[in-house]
Amino acid sequence: MTTPSPQRARSAAAKQQRERAILDAARALGADRSVREVTLTDIAAAVGMHKSAMLRYFETREQIFLALTAEGWEDWSGALRARLGEFTEGDPRAVAAVLAQSLVARPLFCDLLAQAPLNLERNVSMEAVYEFKTVVLGEVAAVAGELCRLFEITERAAVDVISTATSMAGALWQMAAPGTGLRALYEARPELAHAVVDVEPQLARILGALLEGMRSTAT
Amino acid sequence: MTTPSPQRARSAAAKQQRERAILDAARALGADRSVREVTLTDIAAAVGMHKSAMLRYFETREQIFLALTAEGWEDWSGALRARLGEFTEGDPRAVAAVLAQSLVARPLFCDLLAQAPLNLERNVSMEAVYEFKTVVLGEVAAVAGELCRLFEITERAAVDVISTATSMAGALWQMAAPGTGLRALYEARPELAHAVVDVEPQLARILGALLEGMRSTAT
Repeated sequence: MTTPSPQRARSAAAKQQRERAILDAARALGADRSVREVTLTDIAAAVGMHKSAMLRYFETREQIFLALTAEGWEDWSGALRARLGEFTEGDPRAVAAVLAQSLVARPLFCDLLAQAPLNLERNVSMEAVYEFKTVVLGEVAAVAGELCRLFEITERAAVDVISTATSMAGALWQMAAPGTGLRALYEARPELAHAVVDVEPQLARILGALLEGMRSTAT
Repeated sequence: MTTPSPQRARSAAAKQQRERAILDAARALGADRSVREVTLTDIAAAVGMHKSAMLRYFETREQIFLALTAEGWEDWSGALRARLGEFTEGDPRAVAAVLAQSLVARPLFCDLLAQAPLNLERNVSMEAVYEFKTVVLGEVAAVAGELCRLFEITERAAVDVISTATSMAGALWQMAAPGTGLRALYEARPELAHAVVDVEPQLARILGALLEGMRSTAT
């Protein structure tokens, strides 16, 4: 029999509850500051655990944030697909606006999208990367399905659009550097005016032109 | 008189020579491993200086790599503009292929393009960021001039293309993770086949469609 004993089930539930508490604390801290400024010690303090005890649930701070990135993909993909489901035909500008808006509405996800390939995936076990990639590839395929329904484009072209949307959201969000001294510098010096990045309109312009170009190439 | 004394001129030349040696050592190390794996101690060892002495030339390891990123922009922009100068008309696929090829031929620059907004700009003085941004904005404007000559697009559209080219080169290069355990994992597991990123063709497809879309929107 593989039914767990009541005792083991209780402890599995307790473990899951602890993991949830750690993830929620990390999410709140990451949203409040930015991911780069949150240490394992900060998370441990917020959740009221010893750092050494926390390492029984997650290997590294990067694993915690990689798990939040996977949850971010599920959340974004679900919300986006619901909105794309209302479209009956592919209007590049309108779909680009929805893509941009749905990403910008999730600043922590934008931060994590840039952090994941550069910093997070490099400090976790291969097993954690495998789990993460499996979630991401599943959500990419689901969103690609919606884009293929709306535009007469190949799955590969749809995946290119999703890669561009998510990677550019991550990069532009980092460049925009909201609320930082960098941003204040760009805004204070007229000669740096072109360094001021406004994520949503720029992302919408790029994705609108990309979808337009993908569609005109396909036909 | 503002003419420096021979002694001061000698010491200024010596300082510049030292800075050059530090930058060259960091470039060789960054190209050999990857930027994330090069510490200040590694650079000091390679150049044969004490870490504390090196800090008289650069504030942090990030400032060293940010200076290399600025040099990377100058090098890439010069080579790209020379190649674009040979075109007499705007062919989106051909120009996209040149953009993609010129970036992929510079792997250290691709690495730095992703590192700069996320990690490098955050660990240097505002003065260093100002200097860096001034170089980048100058090169962006120069490349944009070539794109505007070839395609009937606005300067803003040309800047969007350059942002996409450089940010996607950075992001895709990180995702491709050449020569790492991550890459080996993606290649070993058939269910992760879609996680294998081949930077040059993907970048060329995205930029080709983007230029096509920008052009068809402009007319």
